[in-house]
Amino acid sequence: MPFRTALTEMFALRHPIALAPMGGVAGGELAAAVSNAGGLGLIGAGGGDREWLGPQLAIAKDKARAPWGVGFLCWALELDRLKWVLDEYQPRAVVLSFGDPSPFVEAVRAAGAKVLVQVTDLDEARRAGDVGADVVIAQGGEAGGHGGGRSTLTIVPTVVDLVHPTPVLAAGGIADGRGLAAALTLGAAGALIGTRFEATHEALLAPEEAKAIVAARGDDTSRNRVFDIARQSPWPNRYTARMLRNQFFDSWQDREDELRTDTTARTDYLDAVDHGDPAALAVWAGEAVDLISSIDYAADVLTRISAEADAAFGRAAAQRVRGD
Amino acid sequence: MPFRTALTEMFALRHPIALAPMGGVAGGELAAAVSNAGGLGLIGAGGGDREWLGPQLAIAKDKARAPWGVGFLCWALELDRLKWVLDEYQPRAVVLSFGDPSPFVEAVRAAGAKVLVQVTDLDEARRAGDVGADVVIAQGGEAGGHGGGRSTLTIVPTVVDLVHPTPVLAAGGIADGRGLAAALTLGAAGALIGTRFEATHEALLAPEEAKAIVAARGDDTSRNRVFDIARQSPWPNRYTARMLRNQFFDSWQDREDELRTDTTARTDYLDAVDHGDPAALAVWAGEAVDLISSIDYAADVLTRISAEADAAFGRAAAQRVRGD
Repeated sequence: MPFRTALTEMFALRHPIALAPMGGVAGGELAAAVSNAGGLGLIGAGGGDREWLGPQLAIAKDKARAPWGVGFLCWALELDRLKWVLDEYQPRAVVLSFGDPSPFVEAVRAAGAKVLVQVTDLDEARRAGDVGADVVIAQGGEAGGHGGGRSTLTIVPTVVDLVHPTPVLAAGGIADGRGLAAALTLGAAGALIGTRFEATHEALLAPEEAKAIVAARGDDTSRNRVFDIARQSPWPNRYTARMLRNQFFDSWQDREDELRTDTTARTDYLDAVDHGDPAALAVWAGEAVDLISSIDYAADVLTRISAEADAAFGRAAAQRVRGD
Repeated sequence: MPFRTALTEMFALRHPIALAPMGGVAGGELAAAVSNAGGLGLIGAGGGDREWLGPQLAIAKDKARAPWGVGFLCWALELDRLKWVLDEYQPRAVVLSFGDPSPFVEAVRAAGAKVLVQVTDLDEARRAGDVGADVVIAQGGEAGGHGGGRSTLTIVPTVVDLVHPTPVLAAGGIADGRGLAAALTLGAAGALIGTRFEATHEALLAPEEAKAIVAARGDDTSRNRVFDIARQSPWPNRYTARMLRNQFFDSWQDREDELRTDTTARTDYLDAVDHGDPAALAVWAGEAVDLISSIDYAADVLTRISAEADAAFGRAAAQRVRGD
């Protein structure tokens, strides 16, 4: 049984679920599959690299029969790149994450698309309200990939109160219908789901990475800066990234400062990555890997999560004692 | 409107809420108040120090007109101490947290009390199932005070699946009815709530600490080892503690190893604590401080959270599209 929320109304969705715009992983095929199955498909555009992004946008534009969108990293985005995407491909939704969204809001609005701003703490949430976001995505540190230190369970209701009446999506730690139902009880209008969609046939992920996600436990993930330091990533230092622990992480955990100054270790790491060494493979994944046990089609994931959420409400409702 | 769950059935409760047995904070008055208002009151006994604990147990035994219990730290507990508590005061519930519960289970069971085992990761959860816990408490790192690195949103459903059909309580990050409702949709039989009860008249907390909790934001909390290192605490290194950030923390953040070897800094810290220096005051509190805006009586907190949870279910249920 589907749900009707501020999110489903805004984009005429059947399920209150958006695909997290995971850079390089959520491409045109996955975004179109999610949108066509009644969710909101979002391409992970990073800073907007034309060579990768152009073909992915073309796939979504060609295949999606329902609204879809694109997610950018504010710290890496340039306005011209955003305008190119808006002009050429007409996404209906643009997610602005990790950094100051204000330089980009006007262009999105002028193109008739909705502005979704993802936040990782309360200062970012206040700023998202100030720039007039149509939707605020409150992301907890359970999430895979980059994010902050708050948890979904506490940041969601707090942001709901802070930006009311702007709709809020819950992101981080949601991979089944119990999580979606929890998000809705917290006051969210839906969930932004990433890791669960990494384990789909449409995701742009190496088969061994998808298998690692299915096999892993949430206890095996870690939020850290080790891999950003190893590859000298330009990510702002305030954001950490959650990934499956591997041998390289275990050997540098709690020694991030040392790794910063160890040129040899960093070179060795890049060599290992080039040679496909599994000990160095960084698989971005959230704590909710516990709840992922198969690689599926995106449409089946959506339908199942929505049905499970309905069942979770049914079970919980049966515990309410009427007439007391 | 109250709820009926495996927890409420086990202890004849009106609300599916247990007081977190916060060491030194959850005393006899608070435990009795929670139990008398229809929740499960739990005294925070730490390792079972007789001088502090005896009077608190006497208060609970005297004032509580409903089941109440005691929570211990496994790593600090001795069996004789546990038996003294069971023999002299007959608690109906014993919470075993942080360490191996197996040396203590038989004594609790022999005394006719229920065994609640708190866990912070999946290995601990499996062990809790193996020792035959009557209830497993899955604690997320949102929680105030000591705990682990998992989040409530992901560890609760995972533990529910792992120890089925044993009832699970959700702990960490829950301070209002939205959080309780979320816990129930995740499959929990109730919530173990700490920080919200610190801001009650019955809690054994200095007034300035309760005020700091009301004033603080979740973003102002941090999970770390700084204060355990500063006071050379015997807490096992694997558990960190969440507290309100203060000046002392800010100056030692990310320099835990340095603090370990800096005798002068540690002595200065203990001096500052002795002199009541607010820059050194360690206030244990969880991320859910965002949701706490007043100091109340425990009974009012219970009633309000239960009513809010019911309202949260009502709002969420209205979003389900029937007959679709």
